[in-house]
Amino acid sequence: MLRTHTCGELNLKNTGNAVFLCGWIHRSRDLGGMTFTDLRDRYGITQLVFNMETDALLCEKARKLGREFVVRVGGIVTERSSKNPKIPTGEIEIRVTELEILNESRVPPFTIEEHTDGGDDLRMKFRYLDIRRTPVRDALMLRSEMAAATRTCLRSMGFVEVETPVLIKSTPEGARDFVVPSRMNRGEFYALPQSPQTFKQLLMVAGMDKYYQIVKCFRDEDLRADRQPEFTQIDCEMSFVDQDDILHTFEGLVRYLFQEVKGIQIGELPRMSYADAMKNYGNDKPDTRFAMLIRDLSMQVKGRGFKVFEDAEVILAIAVQGAASYTRKQLDELTDWVKRPQIGATGLVYARVQVDGSVKSSVDKFYSPADLAGWAEVCQAGKEDLILVLAGPEKQTRKAMSELRLEMGSRLGLRNKDIFSALWVTDFPLLEWDDETGRWHAMHHPFTSPKPEDTSLLDTDPGNVRANAYDMVINGVEVGGGSVRIHNRNLQQKMFALLGFSETEAVTQFGFLMNAFEYGAPPHGGIAFGFDRICALFGGADSIRDFIAFPKNNSGRDVMIDSPAPLSTDQLKELGIAVPEPGTNASGSSQVI
Amino acid sequence: MLRTHTCGELNLKNTGNAVFLCGWIHRSRDLGGMTFTDLRDRYGITQLVFNMETDALLCEKARKLGREFVVRVGGIVTERSSKNPKIPTGEIEIRVTELEILNESRVPPFTIEEHTDGGDDLRMKFRYLDIRRTPVRDALMLRSEMAAATRTCLRSMGFVEVETPVLIKSTPEGARDFVVPSRMNRGEFYALPQSPQTFKQLLMVAGMDKYYQIVKCFRDEDLRADRQPEFTQIDCEMSFVDQDDILHTFEGLVRYLFQEVKGIQIGELPRMSYADAMKNYGNDKPDTRFAMLIRDLSMQVKGRGFKVFEDAEVILAIAVQGAASYTRKQLDELTDWVKRPQIGATGLVYARVQVDGSVKSSVDKFYSPADLAGWAEVCQAGKEDLILVLAGPEKQTRKAMSELRLEMGSRLGLRNKDIFSALWVTDFPLLEWDDETGRWHAMHHPFTSPKPEDTSLLDTDPGNVRANAYDMVINGVEVGGGSVRIHNRNLQQKMFALLGFSETEAVTQFGFLMNAFEYGAPPHGGIAFGFDRICALFGGADSIRDFIAFPKNNSGRDVMIDSPAPLSTDQLKELGIAVPEPGTNASGSSQVI
Repeated sequence: MLRTHTCGELNLKNTGNAVFLCGWIHRSRDLGGMTFTDLRDRYGITQLVFNMETDALLCEKARKLGREFVVRVGGIVTERSSKNPKIPTGEIEIRVTELEILNESRVPPFTIEEHTDGGDDLRMKFRYLDIRRTPVRDALMLRSEMAAATRTCLRSMGFVEVETPVLIKSTPEGARDFVVPSRMNRGEFYALPQSPQTFKQLLMVAGMDKYYQIVKCFRDEDLRADRQPEFTQIDCEMSFVDQDDILHTFEGLVRYLFQEVKGIQIGELPRMSYADAMKNYGNDKPDTRFAMLIRDLSMQVKGRGFKVFEDAEVILAIAVQGAASYTRKQLDELTDWVKRPQIGATGLVYARVQVDGSVKSSVDKFYSPADLAGWAEVCQAGKEDLILVLAGPEKQTRKAMSELRLEMGSRLGLRNKDIFSALWVTDFPLLEWDDETGRWHAMHHPFTSPKPEDTSLLDTDPGNVRANAYDMVINGVEVGGGSVRIHNRNLQQKMFALLGFSETEAVTQFGFLMNAFEYGAPPHGGIAFGFDRICALFGGADSIRDFIAFPKNNSGRDVMIDSPAPLSTDQLKELGIAVPEPGTNASGSSQVI
Repeated sequence: MLRTHTCGELNLKNTGNAVFLCGWIHRSRDLGGMTFTDLRDRYGITQLVFNMETDALLCEKARKLGREFVVRVGGIVTERSSKNPKIPTGEIEIRVTELEILNESRVPPFTIEEHTDGGDDLRMKFRYLDIRRTPVRDALMLRSEMAAATRTCLRSMGFVEVETPVLIKSTPEGARDFVVPSRMNRGEFYALPQSPQTFKQLLMVAGMDKYYQIVKCFRDEDLRADRQPEFTQIDCEMSFVDQDDILHTFEGLVRYLFQEVKGIQIGELPRMSYADAMKNYGNDKPDTRFAMLIRDLSMQVKGRGFKVFEDAEVILAIAVQGAASYTRKQLDELTDWVKRPQIGATGLVYARVQVDGSVKSSVDKFYSPADLAGWAEVCQAGKEDLILVLAGPEKQTRKAMSELRLEMGSRLGLRNKDIFSALWVTDFPLLEWDDETGRWHAMHHPFTSPKPEDTSLLDTDPGNVRANAYDMVINGVEVGGGSVRIHNRNLQQKMFALLGFSETEAVTQFGFLMNAFEYGAPPHGGIAFGFDRICALFGGADSIRDFIAFPKNNSGRDVMIDSPAPLSTDQLKELGIAVPEPGTNASGSSQVI
């Protein structure tokens, strides 16, 4: 046994005890006769004292310890003269009598402190040092707590953990798969799962009743910031339920997580239809920490000769509380902001509600005071509020207004990371039309069931069929989504046909599922939560990066282990694959379909 | 809400309650006026009653229900006249008043019963039906319980769950990797982990102190029966420990699992050196449920002119209790058994200890009664015991004797699946010589540390260096193994050199780990348990197959989803790989190393 205690647990009660500690040299202060050294491990920091008078040799040795050296010390727990109330061990120190260097350390490439001087690339390359920093370690510890609480809660509700396979079959629909060549089945490939969707449905057919898994999933997409090729889901499915049962069950899970991990009670989750979310927030994942609802001004602004509004498909407005004091300069800057390509508005109209209740706008020559009072009324803008108006084609304008709303929420400090506003968004459309491919795509996935009352529209008006699908949204982040599934073979077949699958394609890719539906498939549905994302949200972070122990960069590389990497010719040969020169034809594949 | 209760929970206390149940039609008995139907779900079976007299229409409907139809019934809980004490719901039945067919079922291809008529292939193809069978469902439920208990125990000991990446880098040493072509980094590949070994060591360098994960691992090996290309490990690592700390910690885990899951107390685990295991059991994973130790008879048998023994490198014997009554025919059969190529002995010598204590052998003409009494003494054979002797080259003979010992243990009923005998095997050799490649291989893996007292032998006598490595063995099955790791860069480098890595190879493949060792790596060590295997052991099964929800067959195929499968030409092209015709050269790979 190398140690009797960790660096986070000793206090005045231990005074006089002989102890052994192990850890890393965090920092040292040499005060002439005395040397004070902070020893760090996962559990905390304990101060060590070396005294020139009592043991000069030991003190000299201690003075030579570099940062991040690994040591084992023996000594006596002693009350400190100058206490540090900020840390649990702050009332004591260890008078060291023995010091063993377990390993030395080169000077780290960045400081191991809460706020480091290391850039992202360097931190990733030396991730094993980055994790020694408190915020990263805390993020990983939080993740561990979240996983444990999730499992405790789901188990208490009767969910059984089942591991689904990682080596499965490629289904070219949807996002791109990562594939794995099979050496034993030459010319054939496994795929890594984008989600265990079909397997969890098969588990329902198998009678497992309630399934869950915290599971790695994979998507070979072009990585945007904060997207990882491998990510983790809390994946759940249950049988003999309707949508309401599912929503109740999983808001129970999230309520439990908030209570257990954050000590916060979030209460019942409100439900909002997709249509309302789009109308009021311009977005299917509304940040409901603040209102600032989007209003339609068409009735108020049309017919007054202002061409921009006359020509616009929609005219949308928000009222920003207390922002009437915005200067001309600030408003110009805001106008530039909405005109950026990421937002894509062509201009910004504004109106200030003055202290006396009158309204002054940037388009006063077209609108009377009464007109403008109407704007304020529709926007529920009060004295000293600022009304911001965007106009243009429906889809783009709604999106731009959603962005503007979020931006104004941020500027007004309404998006506090310590406040959590959770809700369900429901009644999503089943299908969305894709102009590029000229066909319908499943908004959720092809296994989502239409609302029974809308089923008749499948043939006549597919775009207006609503799905039994739902997302859980917290603070404007979609943390989870799911649906009641189709459990009838004919309906599933019809769905595949609607999505443009040929009968052969449907059978080749999902025949096993449709067959399963013929052997007593129960009604079922479920949900998947983005675990990386929900951890980041709980941790108050914008990026998921620090909630993943060894993340990949935006090119999908692990810069620490330098992966991916070329294979040897022998390995390729054994696998029966080749890497053609770029530009040449991937030839010789007569056996592929 | 489709149901008020499950099929496993109603009893006499519920008598008179109106309930709704959902489930599958398990079987039906039509007794003229009454129809009795067993409704099944994950939780149990509840008897439904339909009565021609009270509701003929409903009863007719019930009679048309096929096996495995999914139904929802409403009715009244009623005391049964003929009770079934074998099931928890056996005292009640449901007088059904409402019956809704939720889904129909074709006739299943095999019976959904404890003992099915379905062959392995059919069961695998329709795995979703196989899982409906009690033994398979119970196996998966046991696995879920095992995972939960493992996590509870490790968390209580301060272990933090950390997810390590699945897309890592190929390391051609050791078993074959599954690889994943990177679309974004053309010509480069990820590999799937054979274990998170290097990552868990980096987590120790990162100061995580105690790590665990229940994690999927992958090995592209030619599959023997009961090996899966993807398998699950309980993977653990801890810092600032010596071997003794690690053994104490993880026998604590296994003790907890036995207590929690099986209600069995297994006590302290004995420790046996590799050398003793090989000597006494001929095997580094001894089945210690029974003794029947292997004895060396060389001293007793040499110099008597029996050529077989004179020429043999070793002469090994076991005493089989009470088997002196074996007939000549049985002994001939046993002789044939040891001569099978899988066992590989050239013959079997035997000696019976008679009721009067005298010994009769198959080689009486070479050995005096006193000689044979000496055999009995060495073997600790008593009256009516049978002594079995094998002779030949050391390695093969020890292996054959180990097999014979296990076989005799089985024949004597000494290998009861309900009895568990666990132990640690320690002090493994660090290296083993491979005649084929003409170099040393790491017996455990290249990160295992030599025993400090043997380190000096690394240069002079590597074959005699013992490792700080250990296996946990239960009932002759290696359920886990681990080691104290190297945490010093120079020693790690020396180890790689010993194993025949060039300096470049070592740096290319494991440079990140050796670098990490230069920044304050703590002493650390750990273990990995084969989770599939330990679940099967707890479940009393020989095969891991039913403890995996969706296993692959011996060709690595998932016959249910029909995977692996060919990819489309487009997919291959996008990934930058080609599948050459078998026999052609995997050409055009100038960018591979």
